[in-house]
Amino acid sequence: MPKKTYRVAVVGATGAVGVEMLRLLVDRRFPYLEVHAFASERSMGKSVPFGTRNLQVAQLTPSAAQNIDIALFSAGASISREFAPFFVKAGALVIDNSSAFRMELDVPLVIPEVNSDALNHSVRLVAVPNCSTIIAVTPLWPIHQKNPIRRLIAATYQAASGAGAAAMSELVESTRAELNGKSYKNTVFPHPYAFNLFSHNSKVDPATGYNGEELKMADETRKIFNDRAIRISATCVRVPVLRAHSEALHFECERPISPQEVSQILKTARGVRLVDDPHKNHYPMPKEASGQNDILVGRIRQDVSDPSGRSIALFVSGDQLLKGAALNAVQIAEVMIEKGYV
Amino acid sequence: MPKKTYRVAVVGATGAVGVEMLRLLVDRRFPYLEVHAFASERSMGKSVPFGTRNLQVAQLTPSAAQNIDIALFSAGASISREFAPFFVKAGALVIDNSSAFRMELDVPLVIPEVNSDALNHSVRLVAVPNCSTIIAVTPLWPIHQKNPIRRLIAATYQAASGAGAAAMSELVESTRAELNGKSYKNTVFPHPYAFNLFSHNSKVDPATGYNGEELKMADETRKIFNDRAIRISATCVRVPVLRAHSEALHFECERPISPQEVSQILKTARGVRLVDDPHKNHYPMPKEASGQNDILVGRIRQDVSDPSGRSIALFVSGDQLLKGAALNAVQIAEVMIEKGYV
Repeated sequence: MPKKTYRVAVVGATGAVGVEMLRLLVDRRFPYLEVHAFASERSMGKSVPFGTRNLQVAQLTPSAAQNIDIALFSAGASISREFAPFFVKAGALVIDNSSAFRMELDVPLVIPEVNSDALNHSVRLVAVPNCSTIIAVTPLWPIHQKNPIRRLIAATYQAASGAGAAAMSELVESTRAELNGKSYKNTVFPHPYAFNLFSHNSKVDPATGYNGEELKMADETRKIFNDRAIRISATCVRVPVLRAHSEALHFECERPISPQEVSQILKTARGVRLVDDPHKNHYPMPKEASGQNDILVGRIRQDVSDPSGRSIALFVSGDQLLKGAALNAVQIAEVMIEKGYV
Repeated sequence: MPKKTYRVAVVGATGAVGVEMLRLLVDRRFPYLEVHAFASERSMGKSVPFGTRNLQVAQLTPSAAQNIDIALFSAGASISREFAPFFVKAGALVIDNSSAFRMELDVPLVIPEVNSDALNHSVRLVAVPNCSTIIAVTPLWPIHQKNPIRRLIAATYQAASGAGAAAMSELVESTRAELNGKSYKNTVFPHPYAFNLFSHNSKVDPATGYNGEELKMADETRKIFNDRAIRISATCVRVPVLRAHSEALHFECERPISPQEVSQILKTARGVRLVDDPHKNHYPMPKEASGQNDILVGRIRQDVSDPSGRSIALFVSGDQLLKGAALNAVQIAEVMIEKGYV
């Protein structure tokens, strides 16, 4: 029997994540029959690289959903809310990188290394978690399985790419301006970005003081782990880095746990790579995480502020555009295919 | 009676902190009679700005200690260890910005807003805490006084200035090179700095996995608070920012405490300024903290990962060269003068 192939749509094909999705479809030899690139009206007339050729960008309309088997969405929550239902209705599998459906009870929120068991043959809409969530949860999951995590305190060091290609450009151009003694008017972020950092630019919940990104990390982690009891507090910060997020994670397990045990668990865990060399002071860095599929993990040590020996501190860096978004989406599609669900 | 004036030495006068010390002596109308600038041999022949004039830099020798009333040291721990004793022996008051004497039992480690009561007329050597410690402890102290802090988890976002003027230059020049598509060989830090971040470059303690900066934060905070029981775990990270450190602090008090109480306490606290506007998403940023004497504090919220209501999360930014070093040193001298101890 010839291998089954699929008609794939990439929605948001001109964005930072969309470009990576297209690249991954080629590089990972995804079994596509054809690939369609969709974007908003202002990208009409453009083309996007796809392997050795270019794809003409088409405008996203309800009828675009016809004749598509798998649609990868990364064009923001409002586009997903408007157009994903047409694709689902037309019988396609939608894998959505936006926040639109993540917390809906009947939509699986999936990191393949963690909870691909949430997928089944009737699923036609899968949500990709927030990038900060994926980058924390991928390494925490194998630990959680051996010794349940009860509490997590996270401080993030988030890259420009999380806000898209225009944000990356704002970081580069405002930095260039500052180095040349010129002024720069920022249009993507509310604060100057060159040699600066600022609290994540998502809306702050007036009731709790947590911003949207921090609440996503907490809510999504609990959903993915299928464990409502984990207590999570995050501080999300945007730093002048281009495309990999880093996070300082301090967590408490149910029972005592040593750094050696954590290293042992992570050594064989999928989707992560240990970068943990105290002698060379070599630990996860965004420059080294960029372009990598794996989340880099290091600085694994006992959290000495918990005398019960149940707490660990570690530091992670992961490519926000890859495992934090495009790669995770493509991996979900691959699992759905491999299991015969699509 | 005419106001008493002092013969002041600034040791390390050409460094990033030394330059700020000289500026502060002028700007704060410090009661100096004369000011002497000392530096290492390779700075001989140079001069440093001092108000409207320039000071010729002199080489630091044991005999330089003669005829000095107050010596402000910021030339690294080995210079302090070698030369500070000559100044103390010659009767001068030494205020040392290095780590050389900080943990010595008979040397007060002082942040004037916190523990100026550690100073007295017999003190002739005072240590300035590490910059990350000062920036965390200045806002935490008034809270600790009302409701003792039992546990602190800190993640830092540290600027280049903490490693001196050459490090600031490395950040600027490596960034310029990267923007121009040129290569750059870093000489100050072990890792590339442009659009990157990395674990603090101090030596990692093989026994605990904590680096020197993290251990300083823990040890110094306990000494300054005169409270051995506080449990502290820090993750110290160097980010591509020029001269202000930021820190995400999650701490647990002895009794329940609300964000409103914390804001109320900090509103009238010395050395700190609230920047905490959820509506405008305006919080402490290094760009706004740079050049400021106060530590900026914001994002004050309940740490929801502690259901007992005893934990708070907040975010601070403070100028590493000012309150983190030069200003704190000059303030100590001012207190010693004001109290008639010198």
